[in-house]
Amino acid sequence: MDFDFLIENIPETKKAIGTDKGLAKIGDGIVNFTYSLAKSIYLTKESSGNKVFRTGEKVSKNILAKALKDAGMKPFAKNRADSHDLANTVEAIIAYVWLKGNISIEEIVDILLTNLTGNISHRLKEVNNAANAFTHLLLKIKEDLPEKEL
Amino acid sequence: MDFDFLIENIPETKKAIGTDKGLAKIGDGIVNFTYSLAKSIYLTKESSGNKVFRTGEKVSKNILAKALKDAGMKPFAKNRADSHDLANTVEAIIAYVWLKGNISIEEIVDILLTNLTGNISHRLKEVNNAANAFTHLLLKIKEDLPEKEL
Repeated sequence: MDFDFLIENIPETKKAIGTDKGLAKIGDGIVNFTYSLAKSIYLTKESSGNKVFRTGEKVSKNILAKALKDAGMKPFAKNRADSHDLANTVEAIIAYVWLKGNISIEEIVDILLTNLTGNISHRLKEVNNAANAFTHLLLKIKEDLPEKEL
Repeated sequence: MDFDFLIENIPETKKAIGTDKGLAKIGDGIVNFTYSLAKSIYLTKESSGNKVFRTGEKVSKNILAKALKDAGMKPFAKNRADSHDLANTVEAIIAYVWLKGNISIEEIVDILLTNLTGNISHRLKEVNNAANAFTHLLLKIKEDLPEKEL
């Protein structure tokens, strides 16, 4: 199934993609689902015993906001954006690229997993480590996004 | 990427799959994401103008609980389950089948979309119409689930 008709009315500019509220809502699902999977796999592989972890939490807005800034992609967000706005922008961007067919769920999980390091069970440490994984994801999908800002 | 090692420690019984909390967490993401897409496509196709809808909401537990009952799949839930438990069971079942590689995200969206009818913009009407779509999804994936109850 092609989903790209769902984005055909979005102007091909950074701001239009990054500030679309509907895209952010769809992206929220993609982000939480793929991170849950990456985290489950990571914890399972890191586990010393043969324990299998299955987990799923909402990815905090601080993780996503930090990733957007670290990837140098604040121009996709609205002016004077707070953490909540920046997190929505990450979600919108990811939804856009997925709907366009430029990346699959499996590829997103794979990129996050490859770039997860250190402790992600401890809430505070997770923010930095997970943000780093999302930064790499954003840098990867940046190639498929327009250069034009407005 | 294969995800089935994430379910290898789950006994192949209805109750073990349907009451696994981690599976339910992963499934929560799949359910919300796929329903958001199916709803967006449905509203876009039904729209009289050329309006494009992009939406995403958490699927209510009432929708999922009704779907499980209507599909005759309460044996997957714990005894004396309330709506919240029944909804978790639907999420766990969907995660299980997806992780096993028996269904793709696109197929889930397609089955939901094919079985959506009537008004889904009105909150009360949406419960019945969306539950019907999830019932069809459950009946479809039932084939890939174990017969054994305990």
